[in-house]
Parts: sequence; C-alpha cells; structure tokens
Amino acid sequence: MKITVVGAGGNVGSTAALTVAQRNFAKQVVAIDLEKKDGEKTFYPAKGRALDQWQTAPIHGFSTHLFGSSNYEDTKGSDICIITAGVPRRPGMSRDDLLSINANIVKSVTEQLVAHSPDTIIIVVSNPLDVMTYVAWKASGLPSSKVMGMAGILDTARYCAFLAEELNVSPKDIQCQILGGHGDTMVPLPRYTTVSGIPIRQLISDEKLNAIIERAKVGGGELVGLMGTSAWYAPGAAAAQMAEAIALDENRIFPCSAWLTGEFGHKDLYIGVPVKLNRQGISEIVQIDLDADEQKLFDDSVASVRTALEDLERIMK
Amino acid sequence: MKITVVGAGGNVGSTAALTVAQRNFAKQVVAIDLEKKDGEKTFYPAKGRALDQWQTAPIHGFSTHLFGSSNYEDTKGSDICIITAGVPRRPGMSRDDLLSINANIVKSVTEQLVAHSPDTIIIVVSNPLDVMTYVAWKASGLPSSKVMGMAGILDTARYCAFLAEELNVSPKDIQCQILGGHGDTMVPLPRYTTVSGIPIRQLISDEKLNAIIERAKVGGGELVGLMGTSAWYAPGAAAAQMAEAIALDENRIFPCSAWLTGEFGHKDLYIGVPVKLNRQGISEIVQIDLDADEQKLFDDSVASVRTALEDLERIMK
Amino acid sequence: MKITVVGAGGNVGSTAALTVAQRNFAKQVVAIDLEKKDGEKTFYPAKGRALDQWQTAPIHGFSTHLFGSSNYEDTKGSDICIITAGVPRRPGMSRDDLLSINANIVKSVTEQLVAHSPDTIIIVVSNPLDVMTYVAWKASGLPSSKVMGMAGILDTARYCAFLAEELNVSPKDIQCQILGGHGDTMVPLPRYTTVSGIPIRQLISDEKLNAIIERAKVGGGELVGLMGTSAWYAPGAAAAQMAEAIALDENRIFPCSAWLTGEFGHKDLYIGVPVKLNRQGISEIVQIDLDADEQKLFDDSVASVRTALEDLERIMK
Amino acid sequence: MKITVVGAGGNVGSTAALTVAQRNFAKQVVAIDLEKKDGEKTFYPAKGRALDQWQTAPIHGFSTHLFGSSNYEDTKGSDICIITAGVPRRPGMSRDDLLSINANIVKSVTEQLVAHSPDTIIIVVSNPLDVMTYVAWKASGLPSSKVMGMAGILDTARYCAFLAEELNVSPKDIQCQILGGHGDTMVPLPRYTTVSGIPIRQLISDEKLNAIIERAKVGGGELVGLMGTSAWYAPGAAAAQMAEAIALDENRIFPCSAWLTGEFGHKDLYIGVPVKLNRQGISEIVQIDLDADEQKLFDDSVASVRTALEDLERIMK
Repeated sequence: MKITVVGAGGNVGSTAALTVAQRNFAKQVVAIDLEKKDGEKTFYPAKGRALDQWQTAPIHGFSTHLFGSSNYEDTKGSDICIITAGVPRRPGMSRDDLLSINANIVKSVTEQLVAHSPDTIIIVVSNPLDVMTYVAWKASGLPSSKVMGMAGILDTARYCAFLAEELNVSPKDIQCQILGGHGDTMVPLPRYTTVSGIPIRQLISDEKLNAIIERAKVGGGELVGLMGTSAWYAPGAAAAQMAEAIALDENRIFPCSAWLTGEFGHKDLYIGVPVKLNRQGISEIVQIDLDADEQKLFDDSVASVRTALEDLERIMK
Repeated sequence: MKITVVGAGGNVGSTAALTVAQRNFAKQVVAIDLEKKDGEKTFYPAKGRALDQWQTAPIHGFSTHLFGSSNYEDTKGSDICIITAGVPRRPGMSRDDLLSINANIVKSVTEQLVAHSPDTIIIVVSNPLDVMTYVAWKASGLPSSKVMGMAGILDTARYCAFLAEELNVSPKDIQCQILGGHGDTMVPLPRYTTVSGIPIRQLISDEKLNAIIERAKVGGGELVGLMGTSAWYAPGAAAAQMAEAIALDENRIFPCSAWLTGEFGHKDLYIGVPVKLNRQGISEIVQIDLDADEQKLFDDSVASVRTALEDLERIMK
Repeated sequence: MKITVVGAGGNVGSTAALTVAQRNFAKQVVAIDLEKKDGEKTFYPAKGRALDQWQTAPIHGFSTHLFGSSNYEDTKGSDICIITAGVPRRPGMSRDDLLSINANIVKSVTEQLVAHSPDTIIIVVSNPLDVMTYVAWKASGLPSSKVMGMAGILDTARYCAFLAEELNVSPKDIQCQILGGHGDTMVPLPRYTTVSGIPIRQLISDEKLNAIIERAKVGGGELVGLMGTSAWYAPGAAAAQMAEAIALDENRIFPCSAWLTGEFGHKDLYIGVPVKLNRQGISEIVQIDLDADEQKLFDDSVASVRTALEDLERIMK
Repeated sequence: MKITVVGAGGNVGSTAALTVAQRNFAKQVVAIDLEKKDGEKTFYPAKGRALDQWQTAPIHGFSTHLFGSSNYEDTKGSDICIITAGVPRRPGMSRDDLLSINANIVKSVTEQLVAHSPDTIIIVVSNPLDVMTYVAWKASGLPSSKVMGMAGILDTARYCAFLAEELNVSPKDIQCQILGGHGDTMVPLPRYTTVSGIPIRQLISDEKLNAIIERAKVGGGELVGLMGTSAWYAPGAAAAQMAEAIALDENRIFPCSAWLTGEFGHKDLYIGVPVKLNRQGISEIVQIDLDADEQKLFDDSVASVRTALEDLERIMK
C-alpha cells in the first residue's frame, strides 16, 4: 500500500501524511510539495517535514516509511493520493482569482498523479472543496467512485467535539451525519446525531443544540480567528481516516463529497452525502430520508455549489 | 492503577485480564482463582494463564504486569475488581441450586475483595448477572455507584456484530442501546440503533431486523450450541472495556446493570440501563424516552429480575 | 488481505485468529477446524469461537471479519495461512506415533490450503515445530521463503518476559535472539539480549541470567505444569505478529524457523534463525556471529532436529 | 491524570499536547501559551491549536480533553508539566542573549507551574536543553527525580530512523543509547545499538555507521536547513512518550537529561544518561559501562554543558 500526499509541505498535507504513517497500514508515504525559494536560499518543506515525521517512527512504533519529494516520479504506483495543494485566499484576491488559481493547481496535480498511478484513488482536500473535487475528477479520467472530497468527516468531527464538551461525554460515543457543501451552507442533521445510539435531542436543549450547529457551520472560521491561519489537525486527520478506510477495505460509513447521479434529487455535482468507503473507493451512496426542512437546506447547499461550479466554468473557459 | 480479576482461571476472567493488559492503562493485573486438584496433581489455572498472558507483553508491547494468585492479600489496594467467579449450570442442577451456589461464591469473593480494597469499584460478570450484581453490592457495603454489572455491552456487541454482517458495514460504525435483564427478557431498542448516526430502520427491512433482535436475545445460547460451553471472548472484552472507561475517567455511555432508584419507573433492583462511566463508577443513569411498547418490555424484564431476586431471598435466608 | 487459520477450534489457533483481527490489517480471517462429535451432538468449535470473537469487533473497534468453517473452499485466495492443527502427545502415545499423526495432519492441511491459495505464505505452529514446517514446505510445493515456522518469537517472548520481571523494566524495552530448534535444545543468546540497547550482562548477575535461560528453555513445560495443558496466549499472539509483519511488508527482524542453505554452517533443514519478514515472506536470513560455544549449542540443536527429520522419514515411508 | 504543556501555541508544544491526547492515558491536557498581538488583532495560538486538536478526538477516538489557555490557574493539580517555552536564536542575538532570555522564561514558567501544582513532575524541552532543565529544577524546589529534560529520546529516534532506512528494517526493531548534552557533543554509542538484539556493527560497515552517527549529531541542523525552522514532530512526540511512561508507571529505560550525583564520574549537572522512568519520575540512573573512548566523549560533553552553566551563572547574577 503506497500513499501519496500532495501539498505535504503545508500543515494539512503533512498532518495527513503523519496520521497515515502512525496508523501503520501503508508501506510507504510519499510527501510531495514544491521547493520554496527564500532570497538566496532554497527550502524543501515536504522533505523536511517528512524527515522529521519519519524520525517519530521509533517513538510511535510504526513501520511505514515517509519521505518527501518534489518529483512526481516518486509517486509511481500509488494506491491512494491525497491532494491538499492550493493557496488560501489572501487580502486583495478576488473569489474568482482564488477559484482560478486553485483549479489550475488541482488540475495540474491530478494530471501528474494519474500519469504515474493510473489506477489510484484520489481524496481531495483543497478548497473550495466540492468544486475542487469536481476539477480533480474531470482531470483524472477516473470513474467517479475513485475520486472524492474530504469535508464531512471534518465537519462532523467539529460538531461532535462541541457536543462531547457540552454533554461531558467521550467523543468516542457521538455519531452524526452532515450533508451538503463544505462551508456555511453545510447541513448538520440533528435527527442523525446520536450518543451511543441515543438521539441527541433527548440529551440537550434545542437552544444549546442550535448554538452548537451554528458554531459548527463556522467552525473553520472560529479557528482562523484564534490562530490567524486555517486549521490543520482535524482536516489532516480526517483525510487520513478516509485513506485508512479505503486501504483496509473497511466498509465505513462517512459523509464525503461524492458525485451525485440523482441521489437526494440532484445530479451532476460533487457534494457531501453519506457514503460507504472501501477498497473500491465510494462503493455506495447511502440514501437517508430527509424531511422537508432538511431537503430544503440540502437544496440550498446544492444551489450554492452549482453557483461555484458555474463560476468555475466561466473562469476556466 | 491496579485491577483484580476474580475467576481468572476460567475463560471469561482470563480474557478480561488479558484485554485490560493489552490496553496498557493499568500498572498491574492480579488474576485470582482457586487451585484445582486433579487426582494427585494440583493445577494453578490463574497462575498459568496469567503467566502465559504476561509472556505476550513483548509481542503486544504492553507494560501492564499480570500475575496469578489464589491469595487475596495480593489484591490489596485494587482500584477496580472484576468478578467472573461462579459455576455454570450443570445437568441435574436446579435453577435454585445454581442461584444459591453462585450467590455464596459472589458474596464470599466480594467480602474478601473489599477487605483488602475498601475503596474499590466492582464490576460483576457472574450469572445470573443482575442478581449477582445485587449480591455483590450488598456484600460490599459500597455505594451503588461503585458496584455494577456487565451485560449490556456484551448484548449490544452481539446485536451490533449481527447488524454489521447483515449490512456489510464496519462494526466501528454501529451504536445501540439494550435495556433490561441479561437473558431472554433483554430489550434491544431499534429506535436507539444507528449506523454512523443513521437510524437502523432506514437501512434494513423490519423482517431482517426482527430476526436479528431475536438472534441477539439468544446470542449466548447460540454459542453454547456451537461450542458446547459458554462464550468468553466478547464477555471478557466487555468487562475490560468498562474497567478502561472507569480507569481513564472517560465519561463513556454504555448500557450496564445499575441500581435503580426510580429511573424508568422502577427502583430497588439492579438491571441494565444506559449509564455514564467514569472514575466515580456510574456517575449518572441516562434517562432515555421509552414508548409504550418499549416500557412494557422493560417492565417485563424488571419483573423477571424481581422474581429471581425473590428466589434468592427465599433461598438465602 | 485474507488470512486463514487452521486449527482455529483450538486455543492456539483461535488466539492467532483474534489477534490478527484485533490488529485490523486484514479484510477477513477464516477460522478452519473440524466439526466435533460428542455422542449425539455435533459441535463446531471454529465457528463458535470465530463468532464469539467477531462479537468483540464493536468492543475492540476492528473491521476485520472473522468467521468459522470446516470447508476449505472458504479459504480460497488466502494471502497468509497459519497452521496450528495437530494433536498433543497423550499418555500411551509414542513419540513416533505423535510424529506420524501430526505429519499426516499438516501434510493434508497444507495440500488443501495450497489447492485453494496457490500463492499463499504459510506459517506453521504445529509441533514438533521444525519438522512440521519441513512437512508443510514439502507438501506445499512453494519456495522456501514462503513457508516458515513460528517458535522463536514465542521463545524470545518468554525469555524477555522473565527478564522484564526480574529487572522490573517494561517488556517494551527488551530485545533478544534465540536460535535453534523449538524445545529444550533452543539456544538463548545473552550476547544478543539487550534492554534499550544495553547488553543484558551489565544489568543482571550471571547466576540470575542463567536461571532465566534455563527457565526459558522449559517455558512451555512450566505452563503445562501449572495448567495441565499447553499454553496458547503467547503462541497464538506470536503467530499473528508474523502474519502482521508479512501483511504490512514491515521488514521486521524476528527469529523464525527457516530453511537453511548453508547459513551458520548447515543446510537442508528448517530451524530457528534470525530472519527479515516482509511481503515476500522470509526475504533474508540474518547471519549473526556465533562464538565457539554458541556455534556448538546451535550444532547440537541442528543435530536434534535432524534426528527428528530422520525419524519422520523412517516413519513416513 | 492531568498534563500541562507550556508553549503549546508553538509547534513542539502542540505536537506534545496532541500526542499525549492520542495515547489516551490522560483525563485532560491543558495547553498554555501567551496571547499574540498582531497589529490590532489578538490571536490565541494555544487555544486555537488545542481546539483544532480536540476536534480530532472523534476521528482518532480518544477521550482526553484538550483545551488552551493563557492562565496558569487552569493548570492547577497537574500531574505532569511539559515546558517547551522559549525563543529560538534569531539573527543578531548573541548566545548569551539567548541563554538569558530562555532562562528567564523557563524560570518564570516553572514558578507559576509549581505554584499551582506543587507535586508535579516536570519535563523540560526548552533549549539549550541541559541548562534549561537545571534552571527549571532550581526554580521548582522539587527533588531532582521529578525534574528532567527531553533530548535523548529525540536524538536516539533520529539515529534509529537513519539506521532503519539504511538497513531497510522496521524502526520498531532498533534500540540504542545516546549519552551527553543535547547538541553536537552528544555521544551516540554503537556498542549500545542493536537491531532486535543484534549489535549494529554486525549489520553495517564502519564507514556507513560513522556517517550516520555524524548525521545524527547534526540532525536538528539538517532539518533547519530543509525547513528554515526547527523541527517539531519528533521533539514533541518524544516529550509525550516520557509523559506516558511516567503516567502509566511503565518503568521504561530511556536516555533523559538527569541530575548526576557521581554517576559516570560526574556530579552537579543535568546531562543525558540512561534512566528508568516511572510514576516517581526518574527512579534510577542506569549505570552502563563506558570504555575509555566513550568516557572521553562523555567527559567532553560534560565540559561543554558545564561551560554553558557557567555562562548562565555569569549572566544571571
């Protein structure tokens, strides 16, 4: 089992790489990123981080070999590729600029990955997530079951962590589903939120639950506000967990960005829905019931992703 | 953290002891059981099994020291004691005989444990479970929060394993609650059964679900039929998981046999209900909603445990 | 990754099966054993134990699916097969009888395994170990790198556990090598025994070390004496650890029974030596230096295995 | 079990905090660091990172609660405190400036920690390591067994990782000891380096081994060269491993910076030596044999640390 992480000179990518290694299911993790010029000096962030991480192997007790590179030749024969490449939005950068820059990065990265690993499975983490997953899929020429986006595991992790803290219970015991696009149109589903099987509404007041839902929706923004930069620990771990479910053929049920072909009343876009993950990638979209309110929120989220896709087409043509 | 397992010369006890050790949260596991005469020879099953298990430490990589003994002096200062002692029902043995024999064993064991560890928490695994938990509590003089029975984790594990197989999903992703006494009056709760937060009825037909519920209720009997003896792997692991939640102060939500003081409309008996487990033992009984059918089934299960308690009082006086 | 364990109705086999499952590297564990008639009744020990173990999946949190069978069709496509089948020596049974019975069992089992999994790797645990590994190899038609015996990991685990107890250090920190046949001619190597890299002789008196070496040599017998039956926890765990190193392509260095072709001055027999284990099976025999005394002890152990092989040839022709 | 990490707004501290949480032995991790002004804005790096890390709990499956703070009141009752606070050397900063700044930080941090947790154990990670450990000890008023420095686990991890890569064996199977101060006078000990008990010199040429030793000595610098900043993954993980060994009372043998009182011919300084770690802290310094060359290198390393201590005294008075 060989895993490649692109963007592994950055925080999210390198967290994904280390988490994969710590779980010890892969033979090899290839950490890809660009070299970085700083005046006279050249730095190699992916090489540096991967080496530092490899040096944790005697401490954590894993056998997975991590190494960094800027050469796609080294990714040859990867079973799974995680794409975290892309730039964050900077002051003065328009939303369209961001879309254009990241779409070009994801497209180029995907082409290079597939050229060396034609049967790989691809997990996209780059933002805007659902759109970038679409870009990677188109660029890859792979079946849609083998290209997917990581967002729902992160969003549910945040939501569950808030609930665990509020209820003073172990995070091990909270489960939930979140539908929709990654961002403020995400749709946390209280009817699909349980503590050891107990529906959440029996354990918390509506007021507190709603406050937590609203907090989860802007969970990424809260962390930017605290740190001045985007979060990486939970995003990286979430991507690694998807890789593990695929690599070990686990048949796990997670919310992921998947290609719809009519499910939930929509088609022809990538958006967050519950799926079954195994060695085939997404082997199944799990069709859960939505009441009128939930469907409305999901429709709105779909509309929001469609708008972004239209922007993309306008920009990229 | 020191853990004692009584009955560790048998399958359930020794499985609990090894599972505790493998999870590496305790400093020491003391495996207690009687010596066993066989003609001229004397065997030391608890010593033998604990030594064999200690020899797995270099393989599994744990530091917890296991050792066997028949001397309660060695249990001194235990933080948690797991009681698996008791005899199985043998041909020709009446139900009352069984009750009487095991009640005397559990009473005697508890008294010896508490004499050496006056502040311990006690997890009872001996059968009939809910009654034996009561016996241990009375004999211990401890607050009821510190004496509990292991049944629900085992029952839910069986039910979840059947569902995982039927649905072809990872057992990691199934949660549920089962109420009531350990035995054929247990009350699996489909309304409290979810796959990654998704209510089970959306994923399985009523017919299949009912078949699985019926199978779960006689899950112990199915294994006796296959093996000619009672199961031990899941019972032992379940007891260890309770010990871990307590030792690490995890605030986990599990179904356990707990002392009711009015919850769910009943009091003055031990029976399976959802609880929060942490360093205090059972810090809280989680009061979930029951519909009329569920309440009826629970009431029946309560009645069944009460009958056994009355039998016990009749026999023991 | 599919793993088959033959003899999984018994203690060693079922321990190996559960340990493999707990480590969550395999998709499937097939537990094979004969049905067992007891008067009118038929029992299915492999099915029963595997089902009990599968019911621990929700507790331990693994995805590996275990199931029992007596049909070799179910083993089809196994990547690794662990053979624990065989009978123990019973009163009145001659050494030759034992050899003959177990050789026929191992031969038959191997033939059936290879018929369904022609590219499998085989780990033999049946006794007498080095001879039975030879039998399996001959019956398999596989390259010798793909057939090996489990003994050294068990023997070193016992030796290390005794040292950990004596020195009051964590078993995580002790490493060692043991050469030779599995049994009282095994050759523990104090020069190859360290605590976090520190040679053992700096930490313990010669007297105590020698006592531990003598105890390790008869470690199996000590447990028979205590329990009245052979040990299984450490043997089963050791076999699983070999399977893990192979499945995950870990390049681990373990003492295993391997086919010699001149290494250490001997050839044409299976005996315990240090090897590198990875996805190829035994990719390398690690040739360590032996001083005159160590070589003498190893030669004696070789002679003892050769005698057993000659007995086998005499009996089986 | 409550663990505090000071400097947890930085990379090393937050890595230590997350690693402690992932290992799930603590109830609570308190991540302490200063707020950070950036123009008009105030950032809370410890709060942000701890929140992001707490959101990995549902993914990794741990119960340990992480939270960030800049208030030492929140550290009250900590069993173990890890100090990673301090500044790196910046251009234009003299060595004395660095020493003075970090000594004042470590002193102040230690005083605040001990004021709220008078019985805590302290693990120092701040540089220059051996000197800062001394500073913390003096400021703490604690017995020397309860104050120690993290360097040897990191240095050995790097050395072992290089060896694992060179030999193509699992990092799980390499052990070693490194003596002396943290820095270029560290003393890797090939005589105390083994692969599954096999002395390293049997497996590698002198030339390659010497190259690896030299590389290990400047392992930190190699990473600064690649990344333009100090490493954090292995340093943070190493500190967490010490905390785990202490918290779980594991009796592990690690190289740590410990207070010498005559061992190895030296006294009255903190420097790296093999120790036994358990709930008491450093319960024992393990006195290994040194040959003349090794002793000479250690003496030189001691001299180097003494010089730094003298500088400290000169500066601080």
